[in-house]
Amino acid sequence: MPQSPLMTSSPSPLALVPFVSVEHMMKIVNTIGLQQVIRDIAGYIEADFKRWHSFDKRERVAAHSTEGVIELMPTSDGETYGFKYVNGHPANMARGFQTVTAFGLLARVETGYPILLSEMTLLTALRTAATSALAAKYLAPKGAKTMAMIGNGAQCEFQALAFAEILGIKKVRLFDIDHKATEKARYNLSMRGLEVIACPSAGEAIAGAEIITTCTADKQYATILSDNMVGCGVHINAIGGDCPGKTEIHKDILHRSSIFVEYTAQTRIEGEIQQLDAAHPVTELWQVFTGEAEGRASVDQITLFDSVGFATEDFSALRYLYDQLERTGHYTELDLLADPDDPRDLFGMLHRASNSPFYQGKITA
Amino acid sequence: MPQSPLMTSSPSPLALVPFVSVEHMMKIVNTIGLQQVIRDIAGYIEADFKRWHSFDKRERVAAHSTEGVIELMPTSDGETYGFKYVNGHPANMARGFQTVTAFGLLARVETGYPILLSEMTLLTALRTAATSALAAKYLAPKGAKTMAMIGNGAQCEFQALAFAEILGIKKVRLFDIDHKATEKARYNLSMRGLEVIACPSAGEAIAGAEIITTCTADKQYATILSDNMVGCGVHINAIGGDCPGKTEIHKDILHRSSIFVEYTAQTRIEGEIQQLDAAHPVTELWQVFTGEAEGRASVDQITLFDSVGFATEDFSALRYLYDQLERTGHYTELDLLADPDDPRDLFGMLHRASNSPFYQGKITA
Repeated sequence: MPQSPLMTSSPSPLALVPFVSVEHMMKIVNTIGLQQVIRDIAGYIEADFKRWHSFDKRERVAAHSTEGVIELMPTSDGETYGFKYVNGHPANMARGFQTVTAFGLLARVETGYPILLSEMTLLTALRTAATSALAAKYLAPKGAKTMAMIGNGAQCEFQALAFAEILGIKKVRLFDIDHKATEKARYNLSMRGLEVIACPSAGEAIAGAEIITTCTADKQYATILSDNMVGCGVHINAIGGDCPGKTEIHKDILHRSSIFVEYTAQTRIEGEIQQLDAAHPVTELWQVFTGEAEGRASVDQITLFDSVGFATEDFSALRYLYDQLERTGHYTELDLLADPDDPRDLFGMLHRASNSPFYQGKITA
Repeated sequence: MPQSPLMTSSPSPLALVPFVSVEHMMKIVNTIGLQQVIRDIAGYIEADFKRWHSFDKRERVAAHSTEGVIELMPTSDGETYGFKYVNGHPANMARGFQTVTAFGLLARVETGYPILLSEMTLLTALRTAATSALAAKYLAPKGAKTMAMIGNGAQCEFQALAFAEILGIKKVRLFDIDHKATEKARYNLSMRGLEVIACPSAGEAIAGAEIITTCTADKQYATILSDNMVGCGVHINAIGGDCPGKTEIHKDILHRSSIFVEYTAQTRIEGEIQQLDAAHPVTELWQVFTGEAEGRASVDQITLFDSVGFATEDFSALRYLYDQLERTGHYTELDLLADPDDPRDLFGMLHRASNSPFYQGKITA
C-alpha cells in the first residue's frame, strides 16, 4: 500500500552488511594473535577440503591484460555463497602498489543477501600461508626444521610463520634477487623467534632445507629451481606459479616429483603443471586430507604442492572471519542493500527519501 | 627497508575506495533528478554499446539454487574493469526481502585497484529502465504515447518514467495478478504526471497500447502474453524472462516478431529465445545503435526486445555514477585495500599496527 511521505527513510537492519576494513582485519588478527589465526584458518580450510563434494567448483573467472590479471573466484556449499575479487599485477610493486589486493563476500544462498564484505589482501596472505602449511603437514618430511624461501615479498613472512606454527619449522633460509626484500623479511622474522639466514643465492638458501618454498612474482616462465638444485626427500611448496605463462620450477623437477594440487582443472591452466601433459597424474589435496589418497609415501620422495589458490580456501577464510565478528566486535555495517518497507516499492523508497531532510542532497560543485 | 615501529598505521589514499551507499545513491538521484539520471545513464549505455568491440564479453557466472540465482557479471574495456554481484530470488518478496539486490565495482585494469564500490539495487533498476527505453527509441512505433505494463513490481515505475522521459509516453495501463502491486504503482506514477489506468486483466491493459512491457518475477515458464493478445505494429519490451526456465512470452509471438537482444550468447540461455531454436535469427542492440542493422523497418512489424540485462549496461551505469562523485560529493571512502608503505611489507604493516594504540583491539566478549 502507498506509504505516507512521513515514513522513515533510514536503513533497516536487512539493508546493512557487516564490513571488515583493513583496519578491522588488523585489529582482529592482532587481538587473536597472528599465528593462532593462521592455525584456526588452516582448521577451517581442512574441514572444508574434507567436504569437497559439497562445493560448487569452477576455475576462476579471469580478465587478463598485459599488466596483470583481475579474477573473480566464486564458490558455494549450497547454504553459503562466497566470492573473492583479486588482482595480480607484478609491475605494481615498482609503482608503490600491492602486487595482489583482494576483497571478498559471503552471502546466504537462500535469499541472495550478502552477510559479510571484507578486505582480503591480508586475509589472502593468511589463507595462502595456512593452506601451504596444511598441505606440508601431510606432505613434508617428518620432523622438518629448516625451510628455504626463494622470493621474499609480501607473502614471505606469512608462509614462514605458518610453517613455524603448524609444522614446527625453526630456521628459514632466505633468498631474493632484491636484497632489500630479503633484509625486510629477515628483520620481520627475527622478531618472531625464528632463526633467519639471508643467503646470497637460491642454491645456498636450499642447502640443508627439508622444505623449499618458492614465491616470486614475475609474470613469466622463470626457472627459480633447476633440476640439479633439488635433492631427494624434500617438499617443495610452489606458490608463485599461479597464472597462465607464469611458472617457477623446472619441468625436470616436476617429472621427479609427486604432485599435489588444489583443484586440478584450475591448476592445469595456471600452475607449474601447465608445463606438463594434461594427462600427467596429480593428486588433489582433499583426497590426501580425507585419507582417500596417500600423502608422503617414502623418505626419498620429492613432494610438490603446486599451489595456485582456490575459491574454497577464500570461502573457509571468510567463514572463519564471520565467526569472529561478534567475538571481537571489529567491524562496521555498510548500507549496501536497498530495503524498502514494501519490497515491491523500491521507487517509493527513493521518492520518500526526496522529501526527507535527512536524504535531500545539494550539488556542491 | 625495515620501518620504525613509530611509523603511522593510518590508511594511505591508495588504500581508500569511494563507496556509494544506498543512502548516497538516493541523494545523488534525488539531487540530479530521477528522469535526468535515467536519460544520462541511457546516454552512457548507448555510447558503450556503440563501442561494443572494445569490451570483453561473456555470459554471466551464475550459481543457481532452488530458491534463486546469484550472479557475477564482469566486463572490461581494457582501461576499466567492472563487475556486478546480483541475486534473483522470486520468493524473497513474500519474506519481506527484495527479489533483486546488487552491488558493483569499477577497477583500473592497469593496477587492478578498485576505484568505486557502489550499491546497485537502485542503479540496476535505473539502468534496466534506461536500456529498455533506449532500445524502444530505435524499435517502438513512432509517436507512441501509451504503454501497457504487465507486472507492477519494483521495476515498474522506473520503466514507466524512462519511457516517459526518453520516448514521450503519456499514458500507462497497469496490470498485475496482485492488485496491491498495481495500486502501489498507480499511486507512485500519478504523482509524476502520467495518466495511469489500473486494468483488471492483461488483455485489457494491452488494449490500445503501442508498447507492451512485461516484467513479472516468477521463476517458471509463464505465458504472460499469448498469441491472440498481440496485434501488428507493437513493440514488446520483455524484461522478465531473465534466467533459464523463466519466460513470459508465448513462442508463437516470438515467431511473429523481429527479435533484438543485448548479447546473443547470454540471451540464448536466459531470455525468451530459450524457447526457440539456437539458430533463430536475432539482432544485437549495438548493431542497431551503430546503424549496422535496421531497427523498426515497417509499421506492421512486431519488434521484441528480449531483455536479460548485460554486464556492459552495469559498466556504463557505474561509469556514469563515477563521473557524478566529485560533482555531488555523495560518497564515503572505504578502507578496503591494504597499502603498506613498502608494498612488499604487508607483514610489517600488520606488525606495526599491533604496536599502535590506534589499532590495538580488545576482545569484547
